[in-house]
This record gives sequence, structure tokens and C-alpha cells, in this order.
Amino acid sequence: MIVAMTADSTPDNVEEVKRRIEAHGLVAAVSQGVERAVVGVLGSIPPDLKDEMELLPGVMQVVVVSKPYKLASREFHPDPTTIQIGEATVGGPQPVVMAGPCSVEDEEQMVSTAKAVKAAGATVLRGGAFKPRTSPYSFRGMGLDGLKLLDLAKQETGLPIITEVMSPVDVDTVAQYADILQVGARNMQNYNLLDEVGQTRKPVMVKRGLAASYEEWLLAAEYVMSHGNEQVMLCERGIRGFEQFTRFTMDVAAIPVIQRLSHLPIVADPSHSTGKWYLVTPVALAAVAAGAHGLLIEVHPNPDIAKCDGPQSLTFDNFNLLMSQVHALESIRNHPVPA
Amino acid sequence: MIVAMTADSTPDNVEEVKRRIEAHGLVAAVSQGVERAVVGVLGSIPPDLKDEMELLPGVMQVVVVSKPYKLASREFHPDPTTIQIGEATVGGPQPVVMAGPCSVEDEEQMVSTAKAVKAAGATVLRGGAFKPRTSPYSFRGMGLDGLKLLDLAKQETGLPIITEVMSPVDVDTVAQYADILQVGARNMQNYNLLDEVGQTRKPVMVKRGLAASYEEWLLAAEYVMSHGNEQVMLCERGIRGFEQFTRFTMDVAAIPVIQRLSHLPIVADPSHSTGKWYLVTPVALAAVAAGAHGLLIEVHPNPDIAKCDGPQSLTFDNFNLLMSQVHALESIRNHPVPA
Amino acid sequence: MIVAMTADSTPDNVEEVKRRIEAHGLVAAVSQGVERAVVGVLGSIPPDLKDEMELLPGVMQVVVVSKPYKLASREFHPDPTTIQIGEATVGGPQPVVMAGPCSVEDEEQMVSTAKAVKAAGATVLRGGAFKPRTSPYSFRGMGLDGLKLLDLAKQETGLPIITEVMSPVDVDTVAQYADILQVGARNMQNYNLLDEVGQTRKPVMVKRGLAASYEEWLLAAEYVMSHGNEQVMLCERGIRGFEQFTRFTMDVAAIPVIQRLSHLPIVADPSHSTGKWYLVTPVALAAVAAGAHGLLIEVHPNPDIAKCDGPQSLTFDNFNLLMSQVHALESIRNHPVPA
Amino acid sequence: MIVAMTADSTPDNVEEVKRRIEAHGLVAAVSQGVERAVVGVLGSIPPDLKDEMELLPGVMQVVVVSKPYKLASREFHPDPTTIQIGEATVGGPQPVVMAGPCSVEDEEQMVSTAKAVKAAGATVLRGGAFKPRTSPYSFRGMGLDGLKLLDLAKQETGLPIITEVMSPVDVDTVAQYADILQVGARNMQNYNLLDEVGQTRKPVMVKRGLAASYEEWLLAAEYVMSHGNEQVMLCERGIRGFEQFTRFTMDVAAIPVIQRLSHLPIVADPSHSTGKWYLVTPVALAAVAAGAHGLLIEVHPNPDIAKCDGPQSLTFDNFNLLMSQVHALESIRNHPVPA
Repeated sequence: MIVAMTADSTPDNVEEVKRRIEAHGLVAAVSQGVERAVVGVLGSIPPDLKDEMELLPGVMQVVVVSKPYKLASREFHPDPTTIQIGEATVGGPQPVVMAGPCSVEDEEQMVSTAKAVKAAGATVLRGGAFKPRTSPYSFRGMGLDGLKLLDLAKQETGLPIITEVMSPVDVDTVAQYADILQVGARNMQNYNLLDEVGQTRKPVMVKRGLAASYEEWLLAAEYVMSHGNEQVMLCERGIRGFEQFTRFTMDVAAIPVIQRLSHLPIVADPSHSTGKWYLVTPVALAAVAAGAHGLLIEVHPNPDIAKCDGPQSLTFDNFNLLMSQVHALESIRNHPVPA
Repeated sequence: MIVAMTADSTPDNVEEVKRRIEAHGLVAAVSQGVERAVVGVLGSIPPDLKDEMELLPGVMQVVVVSKPYKLASREFHPDPTTIQIGEATVGGPQPVVMAGPCSVEDEEQMVSTAKAVKAAGATVLRGGAFKPRTSPYSFRGMGLDGLKLLDLAKQETGLPIITEVMSPVDVDTVAQYADILQVGARNMQNYNLLDEVGQTRKPVMVKRGLAASYEEWLLAAEYVMSHGNEQVMLCERGIRGFEQFTRFTMDVAAIPVIQRLSHLPIVADPSHSTGKWYLVTPVALAAVAAGAHGLLIEVHPNPDIAKCDGPQSLTFDNFNLLMSQVHALESIRNHPVPA
Repeated sequence: MIVAMTADSTPDNVEEVKRRIEAHGLVAAVSQGVERAVVGVLGSIPPDLKDEMELLPGVMQVVVVSKPYKLASREFHPDPTTIQIGEATVGGPQPVVMAGPCSVEDEEQMVSTAKAVKAAGATVLRGGAFKPRTSPYSFRGMGLDGLKLLDLAKQETGLPIITEVMSPVDVDTVAQYADILQVGARNMQNYNLLDEVGQTRKPVMVKRGLAASYEEWLLAAEYVMSHGNEQVMLCERGIRGFEQFTRFTMDVAAIPVIQRLSHLPIVADPSHSTGKWYLVTPVALAAVAAGAHGLLIEVHPNPDIAKCDGPQSLTFDNFNLLMSQVHALESIRNHPVPA
Repeated sequence: MIVAMTADSTPDNVEEVKRRIEAHGLVAAVSQGVERAVVGVLGSIPPDLKDEMELLPGVMQVVVVSKPYKLASREFHPDPTTIQIGEATVGGPQPVVMAGPCSVEDEEQMVSTAKAVKAAGATVLRGGAFKPRTSPYSFRGMGLDGLKLLDLAKQETGLPIITEVMSPVDVDTVAQYADILQVGARNMQNYNLLDEVGQTRKPVMVKRGLAASYEEWLLAAEYVMSHGNEQVMLCERGIRGFEQFTRFTMDVAAIPVIQRLSHLPIVADPSHSTGKWYLVTPVALAAVAAGAHGLLIEVHPNPDIAKCDGPQSLTFDNFNLLMSQVHALESIRNHPVPA
């Protein structure tokens, strides 16, 4: 941590900063520059020291150099994490495609979609039983009955399941059916939920919050990991921007950035980020080219009568097309984690 | 709802749009313009019709004119809602100041702060027992013990309590102690939590999500109201912007906008929005001048040793100064709800 | 400047950083922390040193503590700047109201508006002769003829003129008629224009760019000041955000922030920031309560037939109402530049 | 255009809307819905009609269905535009790579870079002679001498030149040396500059403004085209977002969106959008996979001593690596312009 003093701070101000730092058992190294004094803090810094320093007289700015996440950090865990989900290895050299409908609607829809996405090459089945919806008047999912239909589709096809859990009270139930517990973007800072999924030993996908910085996102992963659950993958699903033509702004650079900052796998969701089926394929390919470890894709037998998110769902035919292009890309892509 | 066709759409495309609209028991009014056909939809429109229309061939854009929130809407409920909290009327002519520490720390801190803010003119006491924290390694609040200390301070001063509830499982407990249940910004789209506070009959404050549009925010209020709890107030607490000097960007225009779109009271939180104590007073006065029905202000006996958010907490002296300026403003402000 | 090394950087990496710093005639102070080494740089740091340091092996992060603007900085120029415009003092205790139509349309419109805003208490007349318009098919202003009508209105009323200059080639002409040269938001980083207005000795208003950080905005002022023109005022006019109900998001906290970072006066434009006439008054009052040194307000005799920006223009009656509220506020406001 | 009335609007309000529409020689089609009346406007709508309508009593919302750009629109010009630059076809099936240093520094730097990028497969040479810089104290380019060095490098290698023009007064000079005139992001709404480059017959690249919507960006292209210059290409170079780890947020979805809305070629700039050399390659590949018609890449013989933007410049070796991956991608990519 660095404490920069104002140009007109007094020697007493610097002395008080030094005294406070030393009161925490830390070392204060004062450098007197041309414009101002700067105090370096050496030692294991408690999280609230920054707040304390900022309030001292004569302090202009406090800069924290250390990252606030440790378990999720690549700096302290250089080797990449891989997570085994059935036959799929998330974090390995090939992108894992997780596909299925936005919400579970009925057996026919679920089983036919599972078979179709498996045939096209997907290795994980997605489907929402508990649905976060902006309006209280929209369809909010089938709940437990939806989980049972997912399980049925799993038995028919062998595909493992990723599905969202919205509330701490549902974690145990969802964990009985799901192979990956998904924490949605709107719940990325629902800390009670993060605590709860951290206490399971199921793999967890933490989707990026609509306005979450990389650091906040990695700290959400840190919440899960701090309970001993190390099987965490991240998912870039678009952030809130000023352009409203797309639902969200896909931050494709997040993919290589997360690979640099963290050892955790990073997956992309082009369906939710764009909100339009005709943008899903180009954005999915972009994510894979940038090094994504996986894709989350919405597929529906009849998008125009889907109970949710029809406009961003691919038909079986379009999903087949997407998969053939992903496979072509796989053969040439590199995982760019530069030195 | 308006369905605008592309310039090259065919008569068959228009016919199919018409057929689908009529299949829902609605009326389709086709207007042929110079560039394109436009189809108006008349009747009570189901929420998913927009999705269905967007996917039909030849459709360029679907515009929803009706607002998706009804109970929270001023258009259908012109009279302003007021909420009585002890002696304070939220939504009335005078701004209600809710003040206290970021988090409950101990009896001495809590009682002394309650007395100080009451003496200065605050009429509601705030204090966090359950704290949402970005890092799992930060102090996360005293929980039930914190609620008991809030209760003690209430008994000493008579001030009613506003405090945050973070999880559906805690709603009953928090509702035993709180006079206003606060839903935090990070939980604005935690729909299970909104459902649960909607089932109490306690007043609820819904803070704006970090990246929530006005419509999403009002739909969060609609969630609570849809369960029969009509005592909802909103709180503008800053949105995520590109400028990092302040913690968030205070959207002061939200105050008159919400008053136009909704009959619910609107409160402002200058402490969290700015993150710096020296910005709290000017931004608080701005909010009151813009017509805010209340303020949420962090006050601490010793900000430099506060367990959270010290840099944005006012000392007792600075809070007194703020209150004297708020009182001066009260005498001249108007509530601008223009015709 | 602080250079933080990665946890696995080698002593040779640190040595190379030290060598490069010393090659610029600066002093490098190395502190070895628990996790990493940190190198402080002492001396007068050239602007490109940060870039150079970031590329050296073993460097994690480079933090610049000094502000890149000097002439505009309050740290090095503690006394506030005031700018005299006719009888108005921008930067003094009372807010200066600059009002008039979005664009100059004809003599009758211009003179009647000038008289009306003067009667209501405005002390500077605004009006656009050169108009930046998003579409090439919109009215782009009367140009020189517009300047002449502004001059006529000035002669009739004695009100000094603020008007926009869009191009370096027009600066001399506009400077003949204007008392304040306005640089629009879209031109805040039009550096040739900033150079050119810096070479005049006319007061300049630099409007904040749609997505400009405080630092970039103050650097735009620094451009003007670096040519010897010290009469610069800033104008917060709303930034681009995700909410589209208002045209832009008024960043009211910018007012006290700029007063802390800079000695230059800060003015607010509630007309452009909100885009809706019924939001102008509450947002204007908010700006004054937050300490703004002035307001820029669009007023038109008949907003519904205005050639531009009718929806955000006040009628004469509404402007009178605004002015009476501003005057009431003046009597109680303070200029919050906290210690 | 659609005019939606408030729920409590009167028949007289609707009548006045109708009257105003008809006064412009247009047809007004009134539909009476369950909640409100909606008036459709048929005919060739003038740009300011929206403003007029919004101010009429009883009007809730005005929705413009037609796009404000015509020449740049794919709807009215379905065939893609291609632009021939030397041997490169921008807008054709293969991505055109434009590479070179951020700024022209000297002959040795310029010629060696030109040779290196040509050898690696680039077909256009970039280099800045006029540099927009945030700080007035940074190196602002060599100006005319820089143009001459670009010309020298062109003669040595045969590579055509793209370089930025910042001011209307420089357009003629720059056009003598450049094969593509680049309008920078900060000048995207410098309308005098757009007018001026529109009057040349040189191809123009319009970079997206830091906070420009797709519509504003296409309207900037429309400015150029409205002067008869149809050789316009667009460049996505990252937008201003809340995350500061990268310099800007690369909006990769812009690539397929622009291909849907417009017939103009779309190029991507991963160097400026990311600001870090180690992100350039993954983001460049993402852009190509999404269908970009070209790339703009910063390359420098010695990034650590570059006069500008060293941290985002590739070495010759890294550029070679990038080019080999781009070529591999070319063979499989499709141009996704869905029906």
C-alpha cells in the first residue's frame, strides 16, 4: 500500500501516518519526493487500513497494490484450474459447449433439445428451472418439476446439467440435480448465496454481474472458494452499456484478462449478452477465438413460442451451423496467456 | 404495441403478423407508410408477445408503449403515496433524514450515534447488522446481535429503525426489529428476497441497483407490491459509471423522474453514492433541492476507526452542519411534479 | 510514481527498473514488501515514463501519483479563479445564470428572449450560431448571421454573449462577437480548437465531453491555459449513461469534485443533461445547492416550434419560476470546498 | 413515427396532435387502444417533428421507427460496399490488416516497420503524423514532416498509407499523402471535419466515438457521404466503460451489428481498445472471427522507447505471430449477415 500526501502536508501529518501504520505492526517507508511525500507500507495489510489512512490529515490518495483476492489469483496459483464435468473438461484445450433452452417447459421440449444439442456436439445441457425475471408478471420457471425434467433429459442423453440456483434455501435441492450450479449475473453479489454454494462440493459457475468490475467478479469467486469449494468457473455474459441495440455489451477482452489475472476457467454467454439470435454465432466465434474455455448457448425447438428469451435462442439448424464453425476454430486457436 | 416491418417485407409477412396478433384475441391495425408497414396492436397485451413478434419474418422492430409496471405507476395511481414511520412521513412535504453508522459495532457507538443524530434532527436511525461486503475477508456485520443493539438504541431514543435484510431466510427476524426493511443495491434483482419482503407488512426501501434502469427499478418495487405490500419507497444511491473518483455516479435527475413515473416516495443516499465524506453535504443538498423525500446519511463517532465505510461517514459535527443546511433548504423547496 | 513488481519478479528485474529510472536523472527508492518489491520514483517525472516502466519484465503495475494537470490544479493554485463577464462574476458567491435559445433563429426571437431572460435576472445571453447536430439533415445554425443577431440582442439589452465555436477557423470571427467562447461537449478533445481558443484572450467555457473523466476534462482546460489564457470555466452538462429516459446523466457530484481538484469556476447545464423541460428546474436547483457557480439554461418564446431542442427549452413563464427559486436558494447556499 | 398519448389525454389532445401532423402535409392514423390512443404518422417525416410532438399536451412518448441515416443504411442499400486501397479490398472476403507505429518518429523507425509489417502480410501502413493527445505536454506528432516520412515508407514498400487528420484546415495537406483519411474517435462528432473529408474523394475511416451509439456513429458516416464521398469504412476501437483495467471496452458485437445495419465495411482496432500488447492478439482474433473486414494494429521496433502508446504496441515478432493466426482464421471464417 502506498500513501501519497498532499503537496502542503506537514511533517506532523507524515508522522501521524507513520504512527498509525506502525500501530498495526507494519513498517512505514517514507520517501520525500519533489512535490510530495509518499509513504510505502510493508507487511501484511488488513483490508480496512486503506479507509483509515484516507481519513488522516494531509493524505491525498491511498493506492492498494496487492490484489484483494488470493485464492482466485493467478499470481499465487500459476497453474490453470480444470474442472471435469462428465466427459467435458472445462479449462482444457477445447471449448466446452453448454446448450439448451432458456427455461424448461415440458418433457418433449427438454428431451428433444437435449438430443439435438448432443448430436451437434454439446457436452453439457443447460435449462432454467428457477428463472430470475425482471417483471413479476413473467413466467418464473417450473421449479422442482423443472429440475426433474432436466434429470430425465440427462438420463436420456447422458449429458450433465448446468442450471441456476437463485436462493440459499434452494441450494441443496438444486445440487441434487445439477452438475454445475449457476449463480446468475443478478446474484453475483448475493453473498449469502455465494456462501451457500461454496459449502457444496459441486462445480459453480459465477456469471459476471451487469456492472461488475473484474476485481468484484473475482472476489465473488473468492467468496465461493473461501468455503473450500475450488471448482469455480467464471462466465462473461455482457455488461450494461449505453448502447441499447444489444441487450448487453459483450466484453470480449474479459476472456484474456481473466486468464491473466486468474487460474479459473472462463466461459462466454453470447445469447444473453446480445439478446438477438443473429448475433449469437459471430459473438460465440469471437469468444472462442479470444480463448474462451466454453460457451453457454440458448437453443429451442421453436424460438417463436419459447416461454422466455425466444429472440436470442437458436433453432436446432442454426446451432448445428454454430457447432461446425466452433469445431473449425478449435483446430487453430491458441490459449493466449502471454508471459 | 407497435410492430414495424422492414422496407422489403412482403404482404405475406404482414399477414402473418396480423394472424398471430389475432390468435391472442387482440386487434391488429395495419398502417401502410411511405417506407414500411406498421402494425398497431390493440387489447391487453401479454408480456411475451414482443418476443414472439420480433422473430417473425419481415419484422424490423417491436415497440412496447405500455409500461410493464402498473402498481408502481403514477399514470394509474396519480396520488402520491406517503409512508408513516414513527413521527416521520416519507413522501410528505419535508425530507426525512435517516442517519447512523454504516454498521452496528457496539452499544456505546450505537447509542451515542442515535442520540447525536436525533439531537441534530434525524427522525429515523440507520445501522447495518447484515452487511453485504465485496470481499469475503471484510467485516460482515454483527447479525442478530446487531439487531438487538439497534433495538436498544431505539428504546433509548425513540427513533424507528431502518436496516438491511440480505436473505429471504432472515426476513422474519429482521422484520421483528426493523421499522423499514432495506433491500440493498446488490439485491435489487434478488427476486426471492423481493417476494419475501412483499409478504411482510413492513415498509420496504428498494435501493437502485448499480446498473438498473428506471424501469427495472420500478419493476423491483412492483415485485414487492404484487404481494400486497404497498408501503414501498425507492432510494437513489448512485449508479456505476466510468468515473472512479467517486464510488458511484449520483443520478440526481432520477429524483424528479421517479416522481413523474411513480407515486412512490424517493429518497437519496449521498454517502454511498460519493464514497467521500466531503462530498456528502453538497450532494445531499442537491438531492433535497431536486425534491427528494428523504436522505440516508452515514454518521460515525470516529470515522477513522469505523469498521466499514469510514471515508464516507460524517462526524457528529459535520452532520449537525448538514442538518442546519437541510432545514434552511426545506423552507424554500418545492416538489416538482410538473403537469 | 510507484512501480509495483510482480510476486515472482527477480532481483535483475528490479535492477533494470532502477537503471531505467536513473537513466532519466531520477532517484529510485526500492522497498521490499512481503509479497513484492515496490519502487518509488523521485524527481520531476516525464509523461512517458509510465509507458516505459509498464513494459519492463517483472513489472505488475505503475501508479502515477502526481496529477497530469498543473495550471488547472487547486493543489498548486489554492485561490479560486473568478472571471468577470460584464456585470457577472463567474466563480463568485452568487450563481451566474446564462440563458437563451438553443439556436438563433431570427431577430424577433432573439431580442424578445434576451429581454425576457434579462428581466428575470439572467446576466449572460446564450444562443447558438454554429450548431453541432447529430444528423447532417438537421438545422446547423445561422453562422455569421446568427452572430450578428446575438450582437443586436446584446446592444438592445446590454447582456454579454456566450456562444459556441466549433472549428479553429471560426475562432477569430466568433471571438469578435462573443464574450465567452464555448467549446462544446463533442469538441472537448478537439485539440486544435482548444489550442486556438487558448490563443485568444477571451474567457472560454469547456463543456465536459460525453464520456470524459474529471482528469481528461481538466486536461482540456489545461490545453487552453497552456497557451496563456487563464480565463477558463468548466461546464458539467451530463455524461453518457445506460439510462435513456434522460438524454444524459447529470453528474451533480462533479460540481464539488471540480471545486476540490481545481480553482476554476464550474457551471451546470441542466437543459442538455436532461433533455426534458420538466426536469430542468429540479436539476438546476440541485446544481446550485451543490455549489455550482452558474447555470446554462435554454429558453425559447415557443418551445414547440423551436428549430432545435424544443423539448428541453423553458417558456418565459417557467424560466421566471426557475429564477425565483434560484434566488431563494442563493441566500442559503454555501460553497463547499472542505478542508 | 408513432405518437402515444397518456392514459388521461383528452379527445381534444388527440385532435391537436392530428392537426399538427396534417399541417405538415402528413397523414395521421389514430388507433384507440385499451389504455391509450396511439397516433401513427404516415409520409416523409421531417427531422424536427418528434420534438414538436413531444411538447403537445397529452403526449406520453414519441417513437421514431425510421432510421435517421439513409445513405449508410443497409435497408436501402443492400449490397455491401467494398473499397479498394492499393491491392487491398476493404469489405471483401479477406480481412485487411493495417499496421504500423502509433506515431511517426524517424526514417529508420518508419521504414523498418513498414518493411516488417509488409513482410508479415499487412497491406496498408498506418502511422500518426498529427496526434490527438490527452495532455498538452505529450508529444503531438511530427506533422508535415511525419507525412513525408510516411510517403518515403510508401515508396520503399508500396504500402498505401492510412493516417489521421485532426482539423479541417489540414485535410488538403493530409489528403496529398494519405490513401485513407482517418477521423479519430475524439473527432467523430467534429462535424466541420466530417464535412471537409466528405468533400475529398479519398476513402475515409470513421472511428467510433468513445461513447457513440451505433446510430450516432452511422450518422457521422452519413455526414461524410452526404457530401458525395461514398468510400467510408467504420472502425470499432472500444468504448468508454466502467472497467479501467483495459483502456476501453471492445464492443465485439458491433461488428455483426454494423454489418446488419449498414453496407459499409467495418474494421477493428484491438490496440487502442485494450491498451495492453498482451491483449491485442486475442482481441484481434475475436474481431476477425466475428467478421471484421480489417484490423488496425500498432507495431513498433522497440515498444519500450516508443514516443506514444508503447504498452499497446506489438514487436515485429509478436506481429508475425498475430498474422499467422489471422491467416489461419481467414480460411474458416464466414461473414455473418443473417437473413
